[in-house]
Amino acid sequence: MSRPQQVQLSHGGGGREMNEFIHEIFFRRFENPFLKAEDAATLTLNGQVAMTTDSFTVEPLFFAGGNIGSLAIAGTTNDLAMVAAQPKYLTCSFILEEGFAFSELEKIVDTMAQEIVPTGAVIVCGDTKVVPKGCADKVFINTTGVGEILLPNVSASQLQVGDVLLVSRDIGRHGACVLAARESLRLESEIESDCATLWPVVNQLLSSGITPHAMRDATRGGLAAVLNEWCQSSNVQMRLQEQAIPVDAAVKGVCELFGFEPYDLANEGTFIIAVPAEQATMTLDVLQRFQPQAAIIGEVVAGSPAKPVLCSPWGSKRYLDFPVGELLPRIC
Amino acid sequence: MSRPQQVQLSHGGGGREMNEFIHEIFFRRFENPFLKAEDAATLTLNGQVAMTTDSFTVEPLFFAGGNIGSLAIAGTTNDLAMVAAQPKYLTCSFILEEGFAFSELEKIVDTMAQEIVPTGAVIVCGDTKVVPKGCADKVFINTTGVGEILLPNVSASQLQVGDVLLVSRDIGRHGACVLAARESLRLESEIESDCATLWPVVNQLLSSGITPHAMRDATRGGLAAVLNEWCQSSNVQMRLQEQAIPVDAAVKGVCELFGFEPYDLANEGTFIIAVPAEQATMTLDVLQRFQPQAAIIGEVVAGSPAKPVLCSPWGSKRYLDFPVGELLPRIC
Repeated sequence: MSRPQQVQLSHGGGGREMNEFIHEIFFRRFENPFLKAEDAATLTLNGQVAMTTDSFTVEPLFFAGGNIGSLAIAGTTNDLAMVAAQPKYLTCSFILEEGFAFSELEKIVDTMAQEIVPTGAVIVCGDTKVVPKGCADKVFINTTGVGEILLPNVSASQLQVGDVLLVSRDIGRHGACVLAARESLRLESEIESDCATLWPVVNQLLSSGITPHAMRDATRGGLAAVLNEWCQSSNVQMRLQEQAIPVDAAVKGVCELFGFEPYDLANEGTFIIAVPAEQATMTLDVLQRFQPQAAIIGEVVAGSPAKPVLCSPWGSKRYLDFPVGELLPRIC
Repeated sequence: MSRPQQVQLSHGGGGREMNEFIHEIFFRRFENPFLKAEDAATLTLNGQVAMTTDSFTVEPLFFAGGNIGSLAIAGTTNDLAMVAAQPKYLTCSFILEEGFAFSELEKIVDTMAQEIVPTGAVIVCGDTKVVPKGCADKVFINTTGVGEILLPNVSASQLQVGDVLLVSRDIGRHGACVLAARESLRLESEIESDCATLWPVVNQLLSSGITPHAMRDATRGGLAAVLNEWCQSSNVQMRLQEQAIPVDAAVKGVCELFGFEPYDLANEGTFIIAVPAEQATMTLDVLQRFQPQAAIIGEVVAGSPAKPVLCSPWGSKRYLDFPVGELLPRIC
């Protein structure tokens, strides 16, 4: 039996075609006891709950190390993990452009079904809209998630003077990877996005008794945006050792070529963590089990203005500013 | 001080401009104790929880009786109300096209802030993406909600033979209204969308001791899609009195003009409810306090195939089929 090779307007119309389409494309891949043909899913949640949402519009849809589907799963479950919440239930909502290839959509949904496994979460309900050709660019995905908070008050406002700051791996990969893909750069070694779910490493940290004051994945705005927001929220300064911040040589190369700072580039599976000084070694140890490039990059200090300060190996200092301007549109 | 009149790419970049933009446009209007500048909101939820998601792509953005903002609030909170869940927390995620007018965006967000009040819910977190001009059509909004289930097992699969079916008001308004707006029809009387939050009436039904077996707002696919899904899920037939189903004369007129059936047209604040026969009168009474056109339209019967049957006043019968084909794209 023939079936269409491209998304049609009727796949979002609410009639028989939509019904068949969502069963064929989504239900089959995301199957779990919560996912039913109802308007809302019925769940159980205990204690304090975290909730987060993200829409994904990345261009290109497929890049080295992932695609919009892995991004949609990692992005939302990471936001839960960053407040020490165990991801439990996700919704996913697709806006599809008429004419989008089934083969690409199926690849994306297959990826989502794989990527969600290590997060421990399940997709409990969804929504599909189809817009006429030219009204959207191929596919946009929203994922929204809820999780159970295992450790309360992990927050941008909880930094304490004396806290040690660590980064979970080398920075700037996702931004550099998407930039290279768009510019069709031929690099000696392809830059892979860091796109990954962070729940396994966060789970390990919490199980090891680490009590982070703050965690944040350094997505849009990169390390620079996270550290500036933290300084503002907790009204503290930071002292960062520039040479301690891991950046891959290929990422540095792309930055030099396009005039970006690696600190401003987006990451999609890299986080900053602030812990009490006495937990710094153990935190580093756990982080390095997952990514050997994890590093201690600085500490929280008293001072004003409430901004991060970058210290160079030769003793000079400068403020690390909030990124300004267009940066990269459609990075996630 | 001058400020931009249109959305710019930098408003989605993750840097300083985005930070200012989301505070100015969203935080100020949606203010509540849960909404903070964190990646995830921290909530408390008790007992069984319902979760639902919807992305809104309606065109035109503004129509008689509402706009994409009221739709985004009503659509998602209605999906919660339909499983007898009290709406509690909503996320909202915007995909904005570069160049979209601030004035229109502010109107939409103002509407959302008003419409959410009667639902009792609050917006706890959000996300903003900006895509280059031509990559999306003005604005798409995703809202995802969670609520506390007050009565378990209200579901498409719970219909019982003998249940009475009621509709909460006249059908087809939203579809006819959007269609008329797109075709720039000049009608004698403007058709207003039924777009509205259903939580107040559902809350009243539940407080009155009504125990619905199923409720569903008849959105995309209209009454026809809901009744067909219910028949399939519960493996029952339905007998509907065609003349009992309320349809406004202007909606009938639009249907005749364009060859639509009012049963297939989308609604955005109209629901079908199946109750035990002994609760039918009280259910009608409560529904009519909110909308005088509410009506008993039929009953659940045994029989095969599992489809709704329309009975005309002169004794003829026909199956009410699942809507098929394109219907109206971008209706919600």
